[in-house]
Amino acid sequence: MYKNLKLYKLITCCIAALLHGFTLAQTPLSDSAVMRSIYTFQLTQGSAYEQLRTLTKTIGGRLSGSKQAEAAVYWAKKTMLEAGADTVYLQACMVPHWERGQKERALLLHSKTTTPLKVIALGSSVGTGPDGLEAEVVEVKSFEELEKLGSTHIQGKIVFYNVFFDQSKIRTGAAYGEAVVFRSKGASMAAQYGAVASVVRSMASNADDEPHTGNMNYYTSISERKIPAFALSYTSADILAKTLKHVPHAKLRLVSTCRNLAESPSFNVIGELKGSLFPNQYLICGGHLDSWDNGEGAHDDGAGIVQSIAVLEGFKKLGIRPYHTLRAVAFMNEENGLGGALAYANNAKQKHELHLAALESDAGGFTPRGFGVDTTKGLYQTVKNWMPLFKPYFIDRIDAGGGGADISPLEEQGVPCIGFEPDTQRYFDIHHTAADTFDKINKRELLLGAAGIQALMYLLDRHLL
Amino acid sequence: MYKNLKLYKLITCCIAALLHGFTLAQTPLSDSAVMRSIYTFQLTQGSAYEQLRTLTKTIGGRLSGSKQAEAAVYWAKKTMLEAGADTVYLQACMVPHWERGQKERALLLHSKTTTPLKVIALGSSVGTGPDGLEAEVVEVKSFEELEKLGSTHIQGKIVFYNVFFDQSKIRTGAAYGEAVVFRSKGASMAAQYGAVASVVRSMASNADDEPHTGNMNYYTSISERKIPAFALSYTSADILAKTLKHVPHAKLRLVSTCRNLAESPSFNVIGELKGSLFPNQYLICGGHLDSWDNGEGAHDDGAGIVQSIAVLEGFKKLGIRPYHTLRAVAFMNEENGLGGALAYANNAKQKHELHLAALESDAGGFTPRGFGVDTTKGLYQTVKNWMPLFKPYFIDRIDAGGGGADISPLEEQGVPCIGFEPDTQRYFDIHHTAADTFDKINKRELLLGAAGIQALMYLLDRHLL
Repeated sequence: MYKNLKLYKLITCCIAALLHGFTLAQTPLSDSAVMRSIYTFQLTQGSAYEQLRTLTKTIGGRLSGSKQAEAAVYWAKKTMLEAGADTVYLQACMVPHWERGQKERALLLHSKTTTPLKVIALGSSVGTGPDGLEAEVVEVKSFEELEKLGSTHIQGKIVFYNVFFDQSKIRTGAAYGEAVVFRSKGASMAAQYGAVASVVRSMASNADDEPHTGNMNYYTSISERKIPAFALSYTSADILAKTLKHVPHAKLRLVSTCRNLAESPSFNVIGELKGSLFPNQYLICGGHLDSWDNGEGAHDDGAGIVQSIAVLEGFKKLGIRPYHTLRAVAFMNEENGLGGALAYANNAKQKHELHLAALESDAGGFTPRGFGVDTTKGLYQTVKNWMPLFKPYFIDRIDAGGGGADISPLEEQGVPCIGFEPDTQRYFDIHHTAADTFDKINKRELLLGAAGIQALMYLLDRHLL
Repeated sequence: MYKNLKLYKLITCCIAALLHGFTLAQTPLSDSAVMRSIYTFQLTQGSAYEQLRTLTKTIGGRLSGSKQAEAAVYWAKKTMLEAGADTVYLQACMVPHWERGQKERALLLHSKTTTPLKVIALGSSVGTGPDGLEAEVVEVKSFEELEKLGSTHIQGKIVFYNVFFDQSKIRTGAAYGEAVVFRSKGASMAAQYGAVASVVRSMASNADDEPHTGNMNYYTSISERKIPAFALSYTSADILAKTLKHVPHAKLRLVSTCRNLAESPSFNVIGELKGSLFPNQYLICGGHLDSWDNGEGAHDDGAGIVQSIAVLEGFKKLGIRPYHTLRAVAFMNEENGLGGALAYANNAKQKHELHLAALESDAGGFTPRGFGVDTTKGLYQTVKNWMPLFKPYFIDRIDAGGGGADISPLEEQGVPCIGFEPDTQRYFDIHHTAADTFDKINKRELLLGAAGIQALMYLLDRHLL
């Protein structure tokens, strides 16, 4: 069946190419010539940078369930239509609705002095309430250390996970992955021993004073108690750690008024260019429309959104009609729930939509380095064979295995997935902070990403059978 | 002779390796293990970032002949000694001494209104004097256009080279290379037709209001007349171009008090680690110590300087004794004369110093992408064979042909040269502007460069015969 489908598609493509040849009486452009036109278009006429300015500067942070997220949905619909999509539609999903409330506060109390620290509540955390809480602090470097201390030393205390980002790692994402477990699971792990709150050192690749938020989860299998969870800036974590060395009974006073409201309805935004030969087969590229509330969501993931829309714009403006239906998907709720990702995948399954490949851009709008590609259905090898086409554009790496959070439910259905891999050295300096703002975007870097993604979508469309 | 030398070195290396084995009774570390230790050292303990903070923040811009350049010489000597160099010495050279004088001014005069424009004098340019000059402006897009207009239209006017940086180029250096000819040669080309001054649109990869300086030359073969030369910021060039469309007789009033003083003595700074097996054979890495006066010379080329010093520090702190003598060279006067580069090469020639390879870092302190390597003596192929060793560190490109301005006189003597190639997408946003400051440096990116360069110097030292 699968082989017959391929044969059918091969014949269809040959006929299309022949007809194209007869009609235009000229040789169709080579892949490398099309790629050159894609790069020239994106670098000199692409709208991604100005679109991102609008998204970040007129809407800003847009956490799921917020008014800003709602505004972003309508912005995305309008922007996809302007980019030349044949069809744009909203796909309903349910999302968590967490609100930060008032700006969080942390005071370090020791030896009759009070030092304010830079702190932020973690997403999904319960609040302390306006009166806050105050307790001694126990510093740990690992869950093993926490376990050893046990209830005897943890009961009634605030647990401080003082775990550093491993600067010796070359992939910053790998260092982040190691450290983030304390953000995600730290509160429940501490709660089981009677802690009253948990605080992590921000997962930061630089040593500044910006606290990094991000989602946490309450693991009821570990503890039924839900305690407030926070992140300290790198500098504030240094101050706390230094103080604890000299004043082991130093206390923290923490105040947060964040709260979890009822789930609320929201939307993915999907823009399509209908396929000329295989309209019922899909190639998708996407990013996530939601962002944390404390910054502007410029790199995370406004960049991925405008790069995905740029793919539609690039095909349309260059007059390239895709063979397969091409979708740009602005997923809702990557940051704290994947509500949009699940809705998209469930919908695709119900409608028996055949997805040939799915690409995600959610690692920042920095200079492209390559793509991570699933080995499923031989896609990795296929893309790897295109490396010489990408070399002139400084896309030098095709790594095995890739994807992203928003396309992971599709991956589970067997869809081969691709993750766009920009340079990540600066990403975790600003990730989930108030500093993830438009001015951190370099126009050429963003547009090179848009071009690289469009070029890959083009090759997939023309060669994937 | 050359073959015998190689055989001799091969035998020496084998004996050294055997002795090393007997002494330590352990297997010497593999290249990949040494590289891992180099990266870990540089990323977690390397001093390059803090050294650069000192150079940029306590000395700042350091144009050849200035007091700041002199201070930089003594800073470099001290810093190389602290890094663990066996020997540090100053190598005398002569350098031009150009002074900017007072901040330049440009006023656009049209229809009874006056608009101030952002302007900067080009290095080596004569000044207008404090009274300035005023003339109508003729815009051209090429030298061909200038030639067509000829004296009839150019006499007594200011020529405005309104040439854009080609954003469709992937290598920003290629776009810069195309545009920079108007900065370098534009004044003499305009002077031959009687122009009173020349103004270029800054060679900028972004559209901001920072004027980019840089050196110019008076080509006496083209014109004996030396007219003042300036660069306008991108935005100011836009304003001028737009005005000229509506008001063809608009005038510019230009004021600069820059001047060329007598050549002055200065120094290269050279730090050495003596080779254990071949002390009279040299491997060098370097950057340039001088910078333009308007910024802090952080990316251009403080980065290259501290990365070169980091090579000494890394060898020393990791206890790796080089087989060949390793030199970090802080060249003086790259920006406007190559006085230091010529002195180094002449000295090497006089002393019959055998240089196995020379590496230069002068393309900014951004994320490493690769190296450009001369094909001379098969070096390109040798380095290319090491690509698998570099892949885990995201150094993905070994391109044929490389080097840099400061090692070009060595290249002419047949020394195989290597250019360090970081990502360059942001470089020409700030190049030669007041915005080339320390805050534009990302610590991890800078240190990854230091590590990559040290790793390559290590491989060259161990394998180059």
